[in-house]
This record gives sequence, C-alpha cells and structure tokens, in this order.
Amino acid sequence: MAVSPSTRRLLPLFLGLFQGALLLFFALFVTYDKPSAQAEDVNLVANQLYGIFPLFQDIQVMLVVGLGLLLTFLPQYGFSALTHNFLLLNFSTQWALVLQGLLHHFHHGQVHLDLHNLLTAEFAAVTVLISVGAVLGRTSPCQLLVVAACEVPIYLASEWAITTQLGVLDVGGTITIHVFSCYFGLGMSKALFGAVQQPVHPKETPTPRSDLLSLVGTLVLWVFWPSFVAVLCQPGDAQHRAILNTLLAMSASVVTTVVASSLLESDGKLSPGHLQNGSLAGGVAISAVADMAVPPVAALALGSLSAVACVLGFRFLTPLLARKLALWDQCGIHNLHGLPGILGAAASAVAILVAPEDTSGSHFSQVPPTGGNASEALWGEGGDHGAGRQALCQAAGLAVAIGASLLTGLLTGAALRLPCLARPPERLCFDDSLYFKIQDQAENSRTGDTVEEGALALRERV
Amino acid sequence: MAVSPSTRRLLPLFLGLFQGALLLFFALFVTYDKPSAQAEDVNLVANQLYGIFPLFQDIQVMLVVGLGLLLTFLPQYGFSALTHNFLLLNFSTQWALVLQGLLHHFHHGQVHLDLHNLLTAEFAAVTVLISVGAVLGRTSPCQLLVVAACEVPIYLASEWAITTQLGVLDVGGTITIHVFSCYFGLGMSKALFGAVQQPVHPKETPTPRSDLLSLVGTLVLWVFWPSFVAVLCQPGDAQHRAILNTLLAMSASVVTTVVASSLLESDGKLSPGHLQNGSLAGGVAISAVADMAVPPVAALALGSLSAVACVLGFRFLTPLLARKLALWDQCGIHNLHGLPGILGAAASAVAILVAPEDTSGSHFSQVPPTGGNASEALWGEGGDHGAGRQALCQAAGLAVAIGASLLTGLLTGAALRLPCLARPPERLCFDDSLYFKIQDQAENSRTGDTVEEGALALRERV
Amino acid sequence: MAVSPSTRRLLPLFLGLFQGALLLFFALFVTYDKPSAQAEDVNLVANQLYGIFPLFQDIQVMLVVGLGLLLTFLPQYGFSALTHNFLLLNFSTQWALVLQGLLHHFHHGQVHLDLHNLLTAEFAAVTVLISVGAVLGRTSPCQLLVVAACEVPIYLASEWAITTQLGVLDVGGTITIHVFSCYFGLGMSKALFGAVQQPVHPKETPTPRSDLLSLVGTLVLWVFWPSFVAVLCQPGDAQHRAILNTLLAMSASVVTTVVASSLLESDGKLSPGHLQNGSLAGGVAISAVADMAVPPVAALALGSLSAVACVLGFRFLTPLLARKLALWDQCGIHNLHGLPGILGAAASAVAILVAPEDTSGSHFSQVPPTGGNASEALWGEGGDHGAGRQALCQAAGLAVAIGASLLTGLLTGAALRLPCLARPPERLCFDDSLYFKIQDQAENSRTGDTVEEGALALRERV
Repeated sequence: MAVSPSTRRLLPLFLGLFQGALLLFFALFVTYDKPSAQAEDVNLVANQLYGIFPLFQDIQVMLVVGLGLLLTFLPQYGFSALTHNFLLLNFSTQWALVLQGLLHHFHHGQVHLDLHNLLTAEFAAVTVLISVGAVLGRTSPCQLLVVAACEVPIYLASEWAITTQLGVLDVGGTITIHVFSCYFGLGMSKALFGAVQQPVHPKETPTPRSDLLSLVGTLVLWVFWPSFVAVLCQPGDAQHRAILNTLLAMSASVVTTVVASSLLESDGKLSPGHLQNGSLAGGVAISAVADMAVPPVAALALGSLSAVACVLGFRFLTPLLARKLALWDQCGIHNLHGLPGILGAAASAVAILVAPEDTSGSHFSQVPPTGGNASEALWGEGGDHGAGRQALCQAAGLAVAIGASLLTGLLTGAALRLPCLARPPERLCFDDSLYFKIQDQAENSRTGDTVEEGALALRERV
Repeated sequence: MAVSPSTRRLLPLFLGLFQGALLLFFALFVTYDKPSAQAEDVNLVANQLYGIFPLFQDIQVMLVVGLGLLLTFLPQYGFSALTHNFLLLNFSTQWALVLQGLLHHFHHGQVHLDLHNLLTAEFAAVTVLISVGAVLGRTSPCQLLVVAACEVPIYLASEWAITTQLGVLDVGGTITIHVFSCYFGLGMSKALFGAVQQPVHPKETPTPRSDLLSLVGTLVLWVFWPSFVAVLCQPGDAQHRAILNTLLAMSASVVTTVVASSLLESDGKLSPGHLQNGSLAGGVAISAVADMAVPPVAALALGSLSAVACVLGFRFLTPLLARKLALWDQCGIHNLHGLPGILGAAASAVAILVAPEDTSGSHFSQVPPTGGNASEALWGEGGDHGAGRQALCQAAGLAVAIGASLLTGLLTGAALRLPCLARPPERLCFDDSLYFKIQDQAENSRTGDTVEEGALALRERV
Repeated sequence: MAVSPSTRRLLPLFLGLFQGALLLFFALFVTYDKPSAQAEDVNLVANQLYGIFPLFQDIQVMLVVGLGLLLTFLPQYGFSALTHNFLLLNFSTQWALVLQGLLHHFHHGQVHLDLHNLLTAEFAAVTVLISVGAVLGRTSPCQLLVVAACEVPIYLASEWAITTQLGVLDVGGTITIHVFSCYFGLGMSKALFGAVQQPVHPKETPTPRSDLLSLVGTLVLWVFWPSFVAVLCQPGDAQHRAILNTLLAMSASVVTTVVASSLLESDGKLSPGHLQNGSLAGGVAISAVADMAVPPVAALALGSLSAVACVLGFRFLTPLLARKLALWDQCGIHNLHGLPGILGAAASAVAILVAPEDTSGSHFSQVPPTGGNASEALWGEGGDHGAGRQALCQAAGLAVAIGASLLTGLLTGAALRLPCLARPPERLCFDDSLYFKIQDQAENSRTGDTVEEGALALRERV
C-alpha cells in the first residue's frame, strides 16, 4: 500500500476548505443580537455578561492550557499534544457553531450569536478533545480532524436525544459529555488499531519533567472545574450549590487518590498517572448531580468513590482491556471519564429517588446544557410523573450515551483507516518532529533516529 | 533505631481513616443553606456569588498552581513539592472545615456550608502550606500530615484570640496567617532537626530550569495576590482600596528587589531566589493595612521596605541563623513571611495612630478573616477607646502570634521526630523517586545513585 | 572604547533613584478617591469593581505570565526574558502613572488614583514590552530601562494625539498600542544595531522544551485576549460584541495559521514560531473594530487574513528585511503587531465606511483607551461629518502612529548606543548567566564557555 507523498498537503487543503465554508456560512446566516435600546436593558446585558464571562474564561483556560498541559506527559510529544488540542478545540467549536446554527437557532433566516452559543459549541468540542485522548500519539492531524468532523454532529444529536427527548438531568455533562466521549474514543481506538495489541513504544514512557508539566495541567483543570460544572446552572442557589458540591467532590478525590494509589503499589510509592487523573475523577462524577438537592456528604462520597474507581481502573482494568480486547487507551480516558461518569449517572438516579418531596422542586431549576427546555417538556405538566420515572430516564440516558457512542466511534475508527489520512508508522509515533519543525528533539544527539526517520519517510512515499 | 518496613503504609492508613471520619462528620452535621424562596433573594444570592467567586478562583490558582510551582526550585523534587502542596491544601481545608464546624458554626445541630466557610478553611490551610516550606525536601508525607493536623487547630485558636478577642485589624492575614505560620514553621524546623547544622545536599542546588519554573510560580502568586487580600474586605470602597494598595505595594517590591539584590552582590548579578521571594514581600506586608485609609505612598513605601528586608534576610539573616542557631529554613519563609509580616504589623499600628480622625471610621468597616465581629466587639460601644489602644492591640496581636506559633511549632517539631513518621535519611532527601514511581530522575543515567538508594533503603529496614 | 567595570552598578542606581522620585511624587500629589458616603454609592462602587476587576486580573495574567512565557523561546535566556518583562512592566506602569498624573489628572493639586488609571498606565507599559521584543537577548537591563523611560511619554503623547485630537476609534489599541510599539521597536533596533547584519548566534535556536514553554505563553495570551480588548468598552452590548468578535477572530487565526504554515513549508511540517505568533494575530487586528457594528463574518475574515499576513511575514518579510536593511527583529514583532495592526487599521476604516446608517450610532458608544472624550469631541456636534471623514481619521491615525514611532524609535535606539548602558558583547548574548546568579546554564558542563565569558568580561574592562 503506497502512501502518496502529498498526504501532508491534505491537512491544509481540508482546513482551508473548511475555513472558506465557515466564512460563507457566517456571511450568509450569522449575525449578532440587536443592541438593546434602553438603559435598563443595557444594565441587564452588562450584568449578565459579568455573571457568565469570568466562568467562560475559566473554561477556556481549562481547555486550552489545562487539558493541553495534561496531555504533555509523553516526553517527546508535548508540542504536538498541545498544538493538536488547541487546533481541535478551535476547529470543533467552529464546526459546532455551524451545525448548531443550522439545527437549532434558525429564526427568521438568521442565526443570532452570543456568548451562550459559543459556550455550548465549546462543550461539543470538549467531547472531541476527550475522545482523541485514547489514540494520542499514534494518529495524524488529518485523522484527528476527521474525528472532530464526525463526533461533533453525533454529539449534538446524542445530546439532543438525551436531554431534550429523554429529559435527562445532567447539568455538567457527566452523561452527555464524559460518558459519551469516553466510549466514542474507545470504539474509535478499537476500530482503528484492530485486533493487534499495540507494543510499548520507547518514547511512551514519561520523564520526570513531562510528568511534572502534566501535573500542572491537572492542577489547572482541578482549580477551574467548578466553573465548568456551574456555568449553565440557574443563577442563585443552584449555582452556588453546584460550585460547593464540585469543590467537595474534587477535594475528596485528591485525598482518596493518594490513599488508593499508595495501597495498590507494593512499595507504597504513588504513581504520577494516578494523581494526574484521579484528582479529577470527582469532577466528572459530580457533574450530573451538582445542582441537585444532595447533602454535602454525598458529594464527598461520590468524589472518593470515583477516585477509587479511577485508580483501580488504571491499575487493573486498562491492562486487562489491553490484553484481552487489544483495546488501546493511551490517556486512560476510560478511567477518568468512563468509570466516574457511570458512577455519576448512577448517583444522579439515586439522588432523584431519595430526594425529599419538598425539595424536589430544585430539580426543575436545572437548565440543560444546550439551553433547551428538557425538564419543562417532561415535568412541566406536573410533578406527578414521579421520581421513579426520572431515575429511569437517567439510566436510559446513560444507555443511549454508551450505545450510540460505541457504535459511532467504531464507524469513525474504521473511517480513520483510510490510507489517505496518513496514520504515522509505529516508529515515528510519539514524536513531535514528524509534524513540527523542531530542531533536535532531545538535547542528546539523536542522529540515529533522524536518519531512520528519513529512511522511513522515504519508504512511506514509495 | 530500626524503621519498620511498613512505614509507607502509614500514609494511606492515616488518610483513609481521616476521610472516613470526614464523611461521618459531614453525614451527621453538615448541610447547605436552604434555597431562597423569593425571586429577589435569588438575585441577591447570584450577585453575591458573582462578587466572591472570581476572587475565590484566583485564590485557588494561587495556592494550587502558584505556590506549587514556587516550590519546584529543587530540581529533582518538583513533583513531590507540587503534589505534597496539593495534598496538604486539600487535607488541611477539610480538617479546618471539620474544626470550624465543631467550633463556630453549630446552629441547631447543623453546620451550614457556603463558599465563605470554604474560604476561611482554605485560609487555615495556607498556614500549613507556608510552614512546611521551612522543612521542604527533608520530610516525609506522614510528617507533613502531622504538621497539618497540629497546625490547623492551633491556627484557628490563635486567629480567634487575635482577631476576635484582641480585636486586631488584619484583613489580609499579615499577622494571623503570615507571621503565625512563619514562626510555627521555624519552631518546627528547629525541634525537628535539633542542634546539628544541616549539610548542603548535592540535589539542593536549583538548575536554570527549576529556577525558571519557580519564577513562574512567583508570577502567578504576584498576579493574584490582590484577590487574596481583598476577598474578605467589605464590598465597595474598602475593597477597591485594598486592591489598589496591594497592587502598589507589590509593584514597588519588584523594582526594589532588583535594586537590593543587585547592590548586595559583588558582581551585580541578580539572585533568582531574591526575585522569587522579594517580589512578593510587599503583598505580605500590605495585608494588614490594605483596607485602611492609608495614602498610596504608604503602600509603595511598605512594599519597598519589605522587599529590602526580604533580600537582606536572604543575604545575611538566613546564613546567620543557620550558623549560630542551626536553624534550617529551606524556602526562606522567614524572609518572605516573617520579616515583611512584622513590618506590616508595625505599619498597621502606625497607620492607626496617624489616621485622621474623620476617616478613622473606615477602620470599622473591616471584616476579620473568619467573619467574626471582632471590631464590633471591641469598638461597638463607641470610638472613644482611641487609636492608641487599637495600635497597642496590633502590637499585642503580633506578640501573641509569634509567641504562640514558636511554642506550638517547637512541640509539633518534637512530635515529628517519632520514628514511625519515617523521616527520610539525608541521602534520599530532595528526590522525587523516594515517594513517586518516577522512572529516571534526570535524563543522564544516575545508576550510581539508584544503587545507593536501594542499599540505603535496605539498611533502613534492618 | 573602554567599558567601566562599574556599569552593573548603573542599574540599581537608576532604579533606586526612580523609586525615590516615585515615592516623593506619590507623597506629594497622589491620593485615593474619597469613600462613598451613601449605601447606594457603595453598591455602585462594588458593582463597578466586580465588572472591571476580573478583566483586570486577566490582563495581568496576560502580561506577566503569558507574554513572559512567550519570550522564553530562547533556550538559555528564559529566566532573563521572564524577569526583564516583569521588571519592565512594573517600572513602565509606575512611570506612566507619574506622567499621567502630571499630564491628565491634575485636579485641585491632587491625583486621584483608581483601578482605571492603573489600567491605562499598564497599557502604556504594554507598548514597551512589545517594542523590546525586537532586541530581545542582545540588550542589557539598563538599555531596556532607557527604552521604557523614553517610550512611555512618547506613547502617551501619541495616544493623546491619535485618540483625543484625531478622534481615531481604537478601543483595543490596534493603532495606538500595537502599530505604535512595533515601529518604535523596529526603529530602535535599526539605530542600535546599525548597518551590520547580526550573525546567527548558537544560543538563538529554540529547543523543543523552550518552544513548548513559549507555546504555553501563547495559549495564555490567546485565552485572555478578549479581556484586553473589551476592558475599556462601554458595558453592555458593545462589550459583549467586542468579546465575541475577538473570540471569532482569534479562533479563525488558529486554524488559518496551521493552513498557512503547512502550505509554506516544502515538507508540510508546521513551524513552532508561526503557531506561537499567528494564533494571536487575529487579536491584534480585531482590536480597532471589535466593538463596532461589524458582522461576525468580518471578525472571522480579519482573523484569517491577519494570520496569513503574520505567517507570510515570518517566512518572507523578516528574512528580507534582515538581508536588505540589516533590520533585526528577534521576536518578529513586525509580523505579530505590525502587519496585523495595519490590517486592523484598514479594516476599521472600511467598517466605518460600510456601516449601515441606522447602526452607526454604535460608533459613538466607544470609549477611547485613556478614557478621553475623543469621539464626543469630533462627533458630538452631529453625525453629519460622515463616515468618510472618520475613515480618513483612522488612516491619519495609522500614519501618525507609524511616523512618530519610527522617528522616536530611531532616536531612542541611538541613545542606547551610549557606552555607559553596557550592551552585552555578542558572545555573551542570549545567556541568563550574564545577569543572574545561575549555576550551570545547561546541564552539560559548559566550562569552556564560562572561561571564555570570564576572559571576555576581563577584556571588556580593560
């Protein structure tokens, strides 16, 4: 099978065409809201902006800096990880804006753009950023863009089905974002790499320095996670509660991760990977119940449990899946997003079932991620449908998220095997110098490698 | 003296028990505030949240990312420094929440948790993070947790005595946080290491890379410091003034640090350590007077003075204390928190004495860190107690902070000598690989070291 | 020509004198606003603070952390780049506060300091930080301070002429900040280095690690750029629109930079320098039109165009200027600030010309950077001056900015050739160890270098 020497031209071609189409779409259909005419409205707009903008900036920091740095644990792939994350975020957000515009926001032929739209588009992009963690380092930028092109519309459809049709309550995206993107990524990885177990690559082992930088990414994500969970909550008590629950869950995660990681190793040393991921597990799990009327102890318990699940997953499940199913999960997204996500979904069902009657009203105060009127549609006619039915909805939502994402992930992964997408050969994986003009990868002379790379590149073109 | 081979099991045991107790305490006693019933209240809650939450997030960034990075100046101890800081912050905050709940917030058998409580609990954790800077790199995680377990209740008692009983005005914690934690840390270090001067360790010298990362930590702390000082100020003018005073003081610190560091070295080169610490000295010193009616020039002068004190401390006092008293202060907390803290306390007394009569009302507008009603208790009956008495109170507060912290620090340090706490042997200090599964500490093969480490570890178990 | 051995004393002398003068000026003239007397005013002050303070903090992060890290791409000059940026920011802000106080804010003999003043002073400092990018690594701290001392007053005069006198609309500083500082920096570089082309220095080539850290700086700048553009907009719709336009422009820049960089290289690999700068080009270009009533597609198009201009500039123009004009531009400020700035200025003229009559009122809603009443002065009497005249004003403003900055930059550069300012000799450029007590610059033994440095230093003193 010959790879065309011009495969590297595919990336700018694809991106360039997309930017052109985006410009055309925006020129034809997208506009801003009319300015407010009256002074009172101006104050209202200003206050709304002051309410949402700091949270929006926090989320931007999380996705661009925090998640980017978290992915730099591969010592010679840091620049690629950071750049691909950045590019995918922007591409996917723009793509989601286009699709959202086409699907949801058509009023009078014009799409009205505001910060809220941008935010929900960014949430769609988050699913892409999570999913590609499963195949980090063994994919080309073209493949990543194809993932984004496929996953964003599937996410929008799945999110619509889960929150608007099923009426699932999931303010921070435990089910719609984390579980969905995790199983999409795993399906994609399975279909892409097939039945052959991936060998351990010499450049795959983190160094102390890359582990340190990755931990800084974790810390940035950890600090700003409450903003991610709370940004779409109703202002007031629900938002306050969502912030507190997230803080408690994530604080419990940190302490429990240290306990679990230390207990699982024979010499009691902590594993950097456990810390980098386990500390965040509570944030994933709490997202579905954050604004519900749960007691603080529930947030702590959920944070602890999800951290235990995450560490156990890294220690036992990931190696098992790699051995039995030849399933490749480079960043361990199943441990950070899958297991805690399922825990969180289960917790949301339990929370709905055991919530006291008199405070169940707080469930209604949720606004689903895309600003739809999910709970109104389901609950508006009266609260008599009961907690049992809503709990079932949560379970159904979880099933839909897992099923749909696995299936579509497998299909996307199959598409990634197209030769024109130029999956890098194994020897050149995990290396920045394949896609970036970077002089000497490590300080040590690595002339041997470079020669080999040239030879491989040549062979690839034959 | 034989160290049990199972000492590494002590950490998860201790932490696990604590998490269990925390869950129990929260399950029994802690709840959230009732949701607001009326629309007006909802707006009020939302606005209060928008006022405090961005500042809260700034403080989280400072403590988790900024302080963590500042401590990474030890080239092979960066991962440990970052992780221990992160773990201690979470453990201490949870511990402070429990103690605060037991002590202060018992109403009707229930503790009502809100963002303000979390913030004051985090302030208690800050004292731990500062104190352990004195013994960075030569302590085990178990020892650090014991420090946290001891220091948090002592801080809460000391803070109560100083602000509630003595009525000391200290909005940003110059006396209650910085001076207290500094002398607690020094006492602890003295009692832990005894009369033997610590030798210079080969892994103790910063490299250009670790110095750079540490400087980034300083910059993060520098940027967000105004939020730390102003978060508990009364909204409005006092808060605005606190922010401006802090900005001026810290700006003056930066410039003066460069002057002082350059003048003190024979070749005029700047010392990275001076920059990393001196730039922040103004923030420590200004905290007590930030919201008082001081003129801008006072903030500038205080910032400059404290930077000079900090640099002089690093150049002369720290070596002197190490030689004469065998006092070990790894991070130089005495130069960053002790000396500028004393300066700031003195400045607060002077500011109270010279404040014009007609604006002295602004002193009353302070809210002490734990939200108590200190100034009301003391001043409420009338302003006629006079500035002189309040200035005396500031001096008394400083004396109480130094005395209480030195004494309890010495006791805590003595407790840290317990063999079961597994203080690392000198050869294995300052090295991440003692507590973390980190492959090759430096890129260069360090086989020699690793063999030696194994031998030492074996000898330790005999 | 002999350099006095005491040149390193010049830095603390100059800075020390400046700090003294600053203290004197503040003691005599500067005060805070009177506290608000009434409860309603207190709420107003608090709300204004909550509106501006988060944006102010974002800008601080950009300038201190983001810009600092962006400059660390020189592998052995990272500590210097970060520190000099930090020192210059503080020095220039203080200097601008003094000058602003003297020039603009004299009321009743007292200067009233508030957060808004600090912000505009920081904007003056930004011009210095950008300009010195042209000569990064080949200048002494003394030279940098002289640049700041000269550029701040020139900027204030130029900004006054452009926004207050000419009535140019430039809310985010495309013309007044970016274009001005770029050509000031280029003029300075030309006059400083003369007609001799600078040779490529062995320490000038980025390593993967320094490129990574620099990219992190870009990401921080990218995330917070909307705050920089929007902070001085009128609250409400104009501010909301400014944020959205900036987000769109910068998102388009990222994608287009990848396209352009990939197309321009024969092997399709991306250049780190293109990514680090091109991603931000949209932010520079959009600043002048961000709050105008432009459609979203214009922001996207402007972002794409400016990214193309930036990448083309790096690929062709910078080498050309170096070859033909011996013009040295270390950071490529002409590509990031010059070309996109000119594009943005042109776009502002076009936007004014084609703006529909009924929404042209939104132009009036701008507040020029220094809070002057530019548009009022020009437009207040009636809108009949027409869009044509305003578009001409924009062009005139651009011409003034380029002309004035080139001329004054050349003069400043000539002043930097004074021997007492101790420009470092070529062999010692790009090296932290010339100004900082840093042990071993690279991990590898560089004894040869150090000996050579000593010899050079000795020779210099003869």
